[in-house]
Amino acid sequence: MPEFFNVLPPEEALALLLDRIPERPAAGVSVVETTGALGRVVAAEIRATESLPMFPRSTMDGYSVRAADTYGASDGLPAWFALVGEVPMGRGPDISLDVGETAVAYTGGMLAGNADAVVMMEHTQAVDAHTIEVMRPVAPGENVAQPGEDVRVEETVLPAGHVIRPQDIGGLLALGIEHIKVAERPRVGILSMGDEVVAPSITPGPGEVRDVNTYTVAGQVTAAGGTAAPLGLVGDDYERQLDAARRGLAESDMLVLSAGSSVSARDRTVDIVAELGEPGPLVHGLALRPGKPAIVGLCDGKPVIGLPGNPVSAMVVSSLLVRPTVYRLMGCADPPPLNERAALLAQDVPSAPGREDYVPVRLIESSNGTAIAHPVWGKSGFIFTLVRANGLVRVPADAGGIYAGEQVQVREL
Amino acid sequence: MPEFFNVLPPEEALALLLDRIPERPAAGVSVVETTGALGRVVAAEIRATESLPMFPRSTMDGYSVRAADTYGASDGLPAWFALVGEVPMGRGPDISLDVGETAVAYTGGMLAGNADAVVMMEHTQAVDAHTIEVMRPVAPGENVAQPGEDVRVEETVLPAGHVIRPQDIGGLLALGIEHIKVAERPRVGILSMGDEVVAPSITPGPGEVRDVNTYTVAGQVTAAGGTAAPLGLVGDDYERQLDAARRGLAESDMLVLSAGSSVSARDRTVDIVAELGEPGPLVHGLALRPGKPAIVGLCDGKPVIGLPGNPVSAMVVSSLLVRPTVYRLMGCADPPPLNERAALLAQDVPSAPGREDYVPVRLIESSNGTAIAHPVWGKSGFIFTLVRANGLVRVPADAGGIYAGEQVQVREL
Repeated sequence: MPEFFNVLPPEEALALLLDRIPERPAAGVSVVETTGALGRVVAAEIRATESLPMFPRSTMDGYSVRAADTYGASDGLPAWFALVGEVPMGRGPDISLDVGETAVAYTGGMLAGNADAVVMMEHTQAVDAHTIEVMRPVAPGENVAQPGEDVRVEETVLPAGHVIRPQDIGGLLALGIEHIKVAERPRVGILSMGDEVVAPSITPGPGEVRDVNTYTVAGQVTAAGGTAAPLGLVGDDYERQLDAARRGLAESDMLVLSAGSSVSARDRTVDIVAELGEPGPLVHGLALRPGKPAIVGLCDGKPVIGLPGNPVSAMVVSSLLVRPTVYRLMGCADPPPLNERAALLAQDVPSAPGREDYVPVRLIESSNGTAIAHPVWGKSGFIFTLVRANGLVRVPADAGGIYAGEQVQVREL
Repeated sequence: MPEFFNVLPPEEALALLLDRIPERPAAGVSVVETTGALGRVVAAEIRATESLPMFPRSTMDGYSVRAADTYGASDGLPAWFALVGEVPMGRGPDISLDVGETAVAYTGGMLAGNADAVVMMEHTQAVDAHTIEVMRPVAPGENVAQPGEDVRVEETVLPAGHVIRPQDIGGLLALGIEHIKVAERPRVGILSMGDEVVAPSITPGPGEVRDVNTYTVAGQVTAAGGTAAPLGLVGDDYERQLDAARRGLAESDMLVLSAGSSVSARDRTVDIVAELGEPGPLVHGLALRPGKPAIVGLCDGKPVIGLPGNPVSAMVVSSLLVRPTVYRLMGCADPPPLNERAALLAQDVPSAPGREDYVPVRLIESSNGTAIAHPVWGKSGFIFTLVRANGLVRVPADAGGIYAGEQVQVREL
């Protein structure tokens, strides 16, 4: 019954798909408040609307001076200055310095008129209320942030495709940019198939199980910035499956089909993907365990991913394929990397050369601070294998396994 | 003017604070739908309401058999079985096996009555429509997932304080747990102080700058799962600052004060923290650059953090102190680790022993796949230093700097 799978490494399968998706927001663009844009993807390059700082700004608490007046000053031979006032925070200077004059300057504040440098408080000594000694010379510009030194007007501050972080929000607001264009969240339809699958609200009868994959995939879609759209459940009836997939794809930017992607009598997902649109299936089968019977397709410009029905297989495939595809649909070619951490493997992990293995592990900090990756063994139908794990160890395709004690990279899960 | 700071390493300062915060959800508990619980913190231990699988389940496509009937089978001497039907997916068996009988079994489906093992399709051969040959013996239980093998009723599936991931949602729904108790998001009041600071919607006058720290901290609070509550701006007037802080703290679970935490004439944040409640300031000054003039306090059970006014200092301190405190307020003692990645440093980074330095870097993949960390130099008043960076390199307190070419751990930013 099993036919020959023409399997591809997951990375190549993903590239085949992504190369066919234009780098622009698939679901359109909307304008949002900058303050609420955390995690959204920039839809069009953002340039600085002005230069920052807007004025020469002291970077220290101290005294603004004409630098030339300090030349030659030292501990033994301090320069004397007449203290003529201060420039308060948040104000322009109403003082202008003559030779030998100085004014108090605050970190972040403006300098007195004619001043071109600031002497740090620590390099001065008060003689009386109107006179200070300066013990170190300063060069012009010393302890002063110049206009445009932080960012120059017209400079690109965020490129299209950038994922907004807290500091980006701060930078945009520093420029007074209160609204930005971001990619709309792509809508990802998720359809679970199989006669045995019932909704979580149902008490399963004999042979039935509650739907899991719709919700693990929905969580991954949400975490990637997409909108998960569960399309419900459909039994093992080809016409009903095709109809549900067709309607789901029409109202989505991407479709995920769970179950029915292995090569057995009842699994005709690949035929569904072929009927949904051109070119249809690009890849049927990944050089991957768990997750071999996955399907990668593109139907009339929309990505369609077929996941194995087993919860562990489904989640591994989804983390490799769905996440980057969701980002790409927002115009982001370079998603934030997943958390990875080096650890020592606690047990031998056997593998077959020619395919990548992903082994669920639980990372535990040993008493000396070393991270140890303990494999969590469990059949790929067992969702609690992944609940107990907090990482995945990748065994490369060219390795025949990894021995206990070897260092591995553990990807967060 | 500068007084002596009694500085502490950031980690010790944080521990002083966290040790005084009870490990329970500060803002209360609410019941949410499991499907919408991604990233929320479990408020009370969740136990399995039933065992999974609920029935002995085939893990392969093949034939269910009485294992004893296969003993001795081999390629040369296959065992013959009478094929008496199949157990369809999602149904209980209406077939019971006699000696020498078998029935088709599907991955995830039930076994025929009396069967105790499954022979893989690959180890069989059809003789005719009613007869198969079995070429390998199977042991009782082989290729069968037993009830409770995934999770046992009453087993703890998620402890209190756990942060919900996609697979947890799947696991809970597999058990039919559609609602869970989670910690309410703590409300974090953020007050920015200083005569020079104006709202982002205002065009700054001479000496003025737009507020940045409220929004970078708000982004970090949001990313950690809290609710950021900007409290607006207040100038350098002690009574007005105290009043705004007091009202802000009353309606929040935690308070962040930006600016005014350095030791200069206009900075009286530490006095405010002392007046807000007992015990008041726990730490004034961190062995940290940037970020030395930070304040860590606890006022009538609520954490109060004073941040330096400089945007870079504020964000570094906030990432070290605010994030873990927000998690703790949700009853999570062990927040998800920040992304870290090993890289080679592109330039020497000087540092002074006795304090931790955090250097903003931009991670760039070199042509051979090595990650190189390029320091992004900029004065700590420059928010775009952090916009251009995508990581922070920590220079430990006992190091006098790090040389170009050395391996460093880069924390995501």
